[in-house]
Amino acid sequence: MNYAERSVELHKKYTGKFEIASKVPLETMDDLAVAYTPGVAEPCKVIAADPSAAMVLTMKGNTVAVVTDGSAVLGLGNIGPLAALPVMEGKAILYKKFAGIDAMPICLSTQNTEEIITAIKAIAPTFGGIHLEDISAPRCFEIEERLERELDMPVMHDDQHGTAVVVLAGLMNALKVVQKELKDVRIVMSGAGAAGTAIAWLLREAGATKISLLDSKGVMGTGRDGMNPWKEKLAQAISDSATTSGMNLADAVRGADVFIGVSQPNLLSQEIVKSMATGAIVFAMANPVPEIMPEEARSAGAVVVASGRSDFPNQVNNVLAYPGMFLGALKHGVKHFSLPMKVNAARALAALVPNPTADKILPSVFESGVAEAVAAVIV
Amino acid sequence: MNYAERSVELHKKYTGKFEIASKVPLETMDDLAVAYTPGVAEPCKVIAADPSAAMVLTMKGNTVAVVTDGSAVLGLGNIGPLAALPVMEGKAILYKKFAGIDAMPICLSTQNTEEIITAIKAIAPTFGGIHLEDISAPRCFEIEERLERELDMPVMHDDQHGTAVVVLAGLMNALKVVQKELKDVRIVMSGAGAAGTAIAWLLREAGATKISLLDSKGVMGTGRDGMNPWKEKLAQAISDSATTSGMNLADAVRGADVFIGVSQPNLLSQEIVKSMATGAIVFAMANPVPEIMPEEARSAGAVVVASGRSDFPNQVNNVLAYPGMFLGALKHGVKHFSLPMKVNAARALAALVPNPTADKILPSVFESGVAEAVAAVIV
Repeated sequence: MNYAERSVELHKKYTGKFEIASKVPLETMDDLAVAYTPGVAEPCKVIAADPSAAMVLTMKGNTVAVVTDGSAVLGLGNIGPLAALPVMEGKAILYKKFAGIDAMPICLSTQNTEEIITAIKAIAPTFGGIHLEDISAPRCFEIEERLERELDMPVMHDDQHGTAVVVLAGLMNALKVVQKELKDVRIVMSGAGAAGTAIAWLLREAGATKISLLDSKGVMGTGRDGMNPWKEKLAQAISDSATTSGMNLADAVRGADVFIGVSQPNLLSQEIVKSMATGAIVFAMANPVPEIMPEEARSAGAVVVASGRSDFPNQVNNVLAYPGMFLGALKHGVKHFSLPMKVNAARALAALVPNPTADKILPSVFESGVAEAVAAVIV
Repeated sequence: MNYAERSVELHKKYTGKFEIASKVPLETMDDLAVAYTPGVAEPCKVIAADPSAAMVLTMKGNTVAVVTDGSAVLGLGNIGPLAALPVMEGKAILYKKFAGIDAMPICLSTQNTEEIITAIKAIAPTFGGIHLEDISAPRCFEIEERLERELDMPVMHDDQHGTAVVVLAGLMNALKVVQKELKDVRIVMSGAGAAGTAIAWLLREAGATKISLLDSKGVMGTGRDGMNPWKEKLAQAISDSATTSGMNLADAVRGADVFIGVSQPNLLSQEIVKSMATGAIVFAMANPVPEIMPEEARSAGAVVVASGRSDFPNQVNNVLAYPGMFLGALKHGVKHFSLPMKVNAARALAALVPNPTADKILPSVFESGVAEAVAAVIV
């Protein structure tokens, strides 16, 4: 059986993947009297008198909601909240596996921005943080910004910042391999959705100075056709004298040091890769079929190649970032993930591979200490 | 240390009581590829094509949300959603312990009826059922009714129906002990909140014909001062020729066969109990201090006495009802808990004590097979 068939079997066998458990004994009437009534009235009273005690006395101190509206799930697109649940269960159990965090899948029956914000604010008391997942752009930007402002807890759309942190970490090490500096290289990106936008902002924060970002209408530029307020703001913040607004992919990539794709399968030809500068770096992360297959990119001259796939070297996997980021936030009382924090998280991840090579720019997801290393810099 | 102190210690030690777990292995890249990407795309696609598959392929098939607004928590009253969380965690882990159900605590940051309904509908896709908890009357009635109508899944406010089912079960066995019939006895109830209202409706459904219900203004009657639409509807449905609208507790209870209190501590004097019919039954369930202490009721002549306390015989504990009710609903695809189903649940519970005595009218919460026996009749 292939992965698809085995996955359906697995989900059927267990009725999903997620379950709950008690951390406390429930074997005797005495156990019940302490964990539940009458004893439980006392922690309730303590929290009523001092709400901050909830982080110490309840699950809130270790729990994150994984919330989606099902509008941009994997490469499947807008399959809706119910069909997104297997992915959210996956995120939840990976949180537990890699950071010991208790994450709860919440699939919302609405795709309306205001209704999503209202629903998440309504359920917030149970949680210590809000992990947004698979919400399509540009709604995801407003939803995240508003929740960050209106909730007193860390909020992060993983498709944006989880991806961005791991890409930056991988790029830091890839640049070591080709002996170039982030501030000097020309970076051309394809895809201006949730991930592309967040990656561009984070690269800029980390010191990149020459960034071009393309959407379906070519290189973004202020006032160009097909812009929106989010693209406009970003286009004003990044620049690259080698490209012009509306320029196509082949022209934009010519001579570039780095290509970063979070867009569509098979967008990047070998010819385009051949036109890049020597020591070219290609991150082709469209899922499950990348912008160019890793072996094709390599044979066209790319020195370091990364993708979203686990069956090639250099997998860009968000699970390297988000468990540690929320672990750090919960541990250190951080209420907002700032851009400098995300750069630090990328640096911490990159440092886990002290001697990067073309085939090893990122730690494996199963390496121990990854979440802890990231958590340590979320302060 | 007493229960209160031990409970705070316990909650502090573990940061609450609730945690999540994975039901599937996550040890290798192959495990990840099956449980998560790329394999997980397939169950997503199956559900997108056939939403009913979510009950088989995801946690939805075994998961209930335990939702509160913190407006009527234990005997503590309106302590708010955050301070209610220790109770909701308790409910969740008891679900797992007694019925194998995965329950997720959701504490809502609003106490507005419409906002509560909207929030619960928004998060419903993740769940197979909605357990409402500790929501004050009369809002709880509208919230439950609306959700039952507007959601395609079982919804139950435990403070109403969980309590009512266990009270009816206990009363069935108590009547056996004193050799009386439900249809013949005069029942006087004190407390017209969530529990009292639901108990009265369920007793009527089960065949009781003489029911008086008192609130703080005495026996309820149509048109009486201080009624609301819910009380009005109930007052029209029950009757007892021995009482009149506005009558006080002492006068109403005189000569009654059964007293059921879900009201306030120390409301029932020994003198009033002495005025009851021979073979009197007293359910004094105010929490944590009952309407009359069990030993006082006994010494005043009550033959069978029940309370909400675990340190006396005949504890009326909702955990005897709700795990089995939702287990049955999830197992049998029941989308609505009807009154006849609740009567059947009470009968099933009562039948677990084949030879009831004055000190044993209900099964212990730790007896095996309780949830299964209740679940079997939720069809």
